[in-house]
Amino acid sequence: MTTTTSNDVLQVTRDARGVVTLTLNDPARFNALGGEMLSALQQALDDVARDDTARVVVLAGSGKAFCAGHNLKDMAANPDLAYYQKLFAQCSRMMLAIHKLPVPVIARVHGMATAAGCQLVAQCDLAVAAEEASFATSGIHYGLFCATPSVPLVRNVPAKRAMEMLLTGDFIDARTALAQGLVNRVVAADALDTEVEKLVHSILEKPRTAVAMGKALVYQQRELGLEAAYQLAGQTMACNMMDAAAQEGARAFAEKRTPEWKR
Amino acid sequence: MTTTTSNDVLQVTRDARGVVTLTLNDPARFNALGGEMLSALQQALDDVARDDTARVVVLAGSGKAFCAGHNLKDMAANPDLAYYQKLFAQCSRMMLAIHKLPVPVIARVHGMATAAGCQLVAQCDLAVAAEEASFATSGIHYGLFCATPSVPLVRNVPAKRAMEMLLTGDFIDARTALAQGLVNRVVAADALDTEVEKLVHSILEKPRTAVAMGKALVYQQRELGLEAAYQLAGQTMACNMMDAAAQEGARAFAEKRTPEWKR
Amino acid sequence: MTTTTSNDVLQVTRDARGVVTLTLNDPARFNALGGEMLSALQQALDDVARDDTARVVVLAGSGKAFCAGHNLKDMAANPDLAYYQKLFAQCSRMMLAIHKLPVPVIARVHGMATAAGCQLVAQCDLAVAAEEASFATSGIHYGLFCATPSVPLVRNVPAKRAMEMLLTGDFIDARTALAQGLVNRVVAADALDTEVEKLVHSILEKPRTAVAMGKALVYQQRELGLEAAYQLAGQTMACNMMDAAAQEGARAFAEKRTPEWKR
Repeated sequence: MTTTTSNDVLQVTRDARGVVTLTLNDPARFNALGGEMLSALQQALDDVARDDTARVVVLAGSGKAFCAGHNLKDMAANPDLAYYQKLFAQCSRMMLAIHKLPVPVIARVHGMATAAGCQLVAQCDLAVAAEEASFATSGIHYGLFCATPSVPLVRNVPAKRAMEMLLTGDFIDARTALAQGLVNRVVAADALDTEVEKLVHSILEKPRTAVAMGKALVYQQRELGLEAAYQLAGQTMACNMMDAAAQEGARAFAEKRTPEWKR
Repeated sequence: MTTTTSNDVLQVTRDARGVVTLTLNDPARFNALGGEMLSALQQALDDVARDDTARVVVLAGSGKAFCAGHNLKDMAANPDLAYYQKLFAQCSRMMLAIHKLPVPVIARVHGMATAAGCQLVAQCDLAVAAEEASFATSGIHYGLFCATPSVPLVRNVPAKRAMEMLLTGDFIDARTALAQGLVNRVVAADALDTEVEKLVHSILEKPRTAVAMGKALVYQQRELGLEAAYQLAGQTMACNMMDAAAQEGARAFAEKRTPEWKR
Repeated sequence: MTTTTSNDVLQVTRDARGVVTLTLNDPARFNALGGEMLSALQQALDDVARDDTARVVVLAGSGKAFCAGHNLKDMAANPDLAYYQKLFAQCSRMMLAIHKLPVPVIARVHGMATAAGCQLVAQCDLAVAAEEASFATSGIHYGLFCATPSVPLVRNVPAKRAMEMLLTGDFIDARTALAQGLVNRVVAADALDTEVEKLVHSILEKPRTAVAMGKALVYQQRELGLEAAYQLAGQTMACNMMDAAAQEGARAFAEKRTPEWKR
């Protein structure tokens, strides 16, 4: 059973497998991350975090662009420090919700991803782009350095490449984004859903608990020194191994059969 | 109005746009970073740091090589721990001055960049190389592991590539340096100035304050955990947004016109 | 004089130059890192750490695979948290021994490297692969996320690539591993030994002390902020320069002759 709920700017589809597709649906504003969009995304991500049967999130956009980042029009209309602080805090909270989500989040990038839209792609765990997709941290063209987008960008892309994007604001195409590590795969537009589905399918075949423990561990250990990272990873792996699915997996390996588990 | 001042080893050119070109000018010693050269560079960088109208620095070299690193002849003549400590401290202070400078620093690499010369390229925010350029952390050939060059190298280049350069001391060519993230662009020698100018021009079009806040933020947040990085980046971006240029930029965006600002 | 000692699962060869080759030699179990193998590796690495005349370690595998990682059969037979904790602690201690070893460790990857076998490659300082080699963090196929392998993986490979390998468990080929930074070089199988020997030879030409100080410094400074990294690197380089070999190297440079040193 697939259910779809929409508010004015975000469409949430959930299929029987636990695949939640969040489609930014404000094409007139190129899916800009205005206050309403940010709230809707936060709500949807919080729902997924509470949903023990959710397995993976796909983040997509409708219309021509994937996401144009913050709504500069709104920002021009509110020349107030507290307003901006609140806006960026709200946006960063949503980005961190992607990071903290127990299920992987895949960006499905069919078109332009600029500023906080490019940040969304960088912040996702995985990303698949169409050949037509393009990426820019373009705020600097309007006098606003893409500071929050730089956070996941420098954690995905080599230092000098990130700095060039941030200082020039220029677009890179999908192939360049692939070469630089910003996306995992680039395919023709009409193969985009198939390619995303391959990753989705692969994740669905794995036990939810192992995926959740693993995603959290990767990001935690990356911030530690090597010895502390190994300590945390070893503990995590020992706990993971005590999970029923891993026990079944190891037995299945020993018995040369396919593991059977509740995924 | 373009002004040029030279001391014995460094030529400093400043044009009316605030573009400061520092040309290492000791071709007989392959622009080695001797005491005099380091002092001249430190002085020039300190001058730029105090110059509110400076906008971007281009670091170039005259003669056959870009920069051959430390002067091993001087080092052989001074077998003294305190001498070496002072020398490397002086060099690191200069490298950190590039890092801390409020304006971007672009390496214009026309030829060989070895040891601390390769470090210079890695430490710059951006780098453009000619096809003929080559790069090596070659100290190990003389029994001296390129320890200080390894600092920016491992922050620019994948771990195993950096380790190979450091352990073998072997040269990589410009195309390899590009693939590994050590430089942003590689062009024919006669297109080198044009390509550097493209980056310079792009930076000049942006407001100075946003660029300065952004450069500092990128390097600061990179050393933090993800949540602290987002917090700092959000604050920085809110402050940046209160700047007159960003306000004008956002209004210009809303009004679909080109922003007009004092750059 | 070359000496070879073998126990049941590991062959240790040491040549007159101080090149120690550790060959995983349990082809029936695809060189799995069972308790016996881990103990043998730990013993061999500890021996190298105490051997002042050892110069470089080559880590190889016999049979079809390079290394299949942990022995899932043993793990299935011991469904006990303390057992798993001890196993992963033992494995991490061995991996850290590679990291701490004063001599470089080169992975010679002729075939499949999966799970902790892929981790071994990532943990080595350098790696050379045959065209036929393949790499996967495959534990997730059996419900066990490759948590400890993720530690060196994310320190070698771009974030989204690492996450894709960890979540899908899919193989990447040698060319992809090269492009992603997991290995330094890829050659035809029959050129594998020649290519490894090039790196070995290059390291043997360098003074042991400089290599040891350098390897330790690179990993230490990488975990520090930029200023602290420069401070540590400057001290290390000054100490390195006081070593007899570096003094001879600098004199040889000044006198335009080849340095002569006890390697």
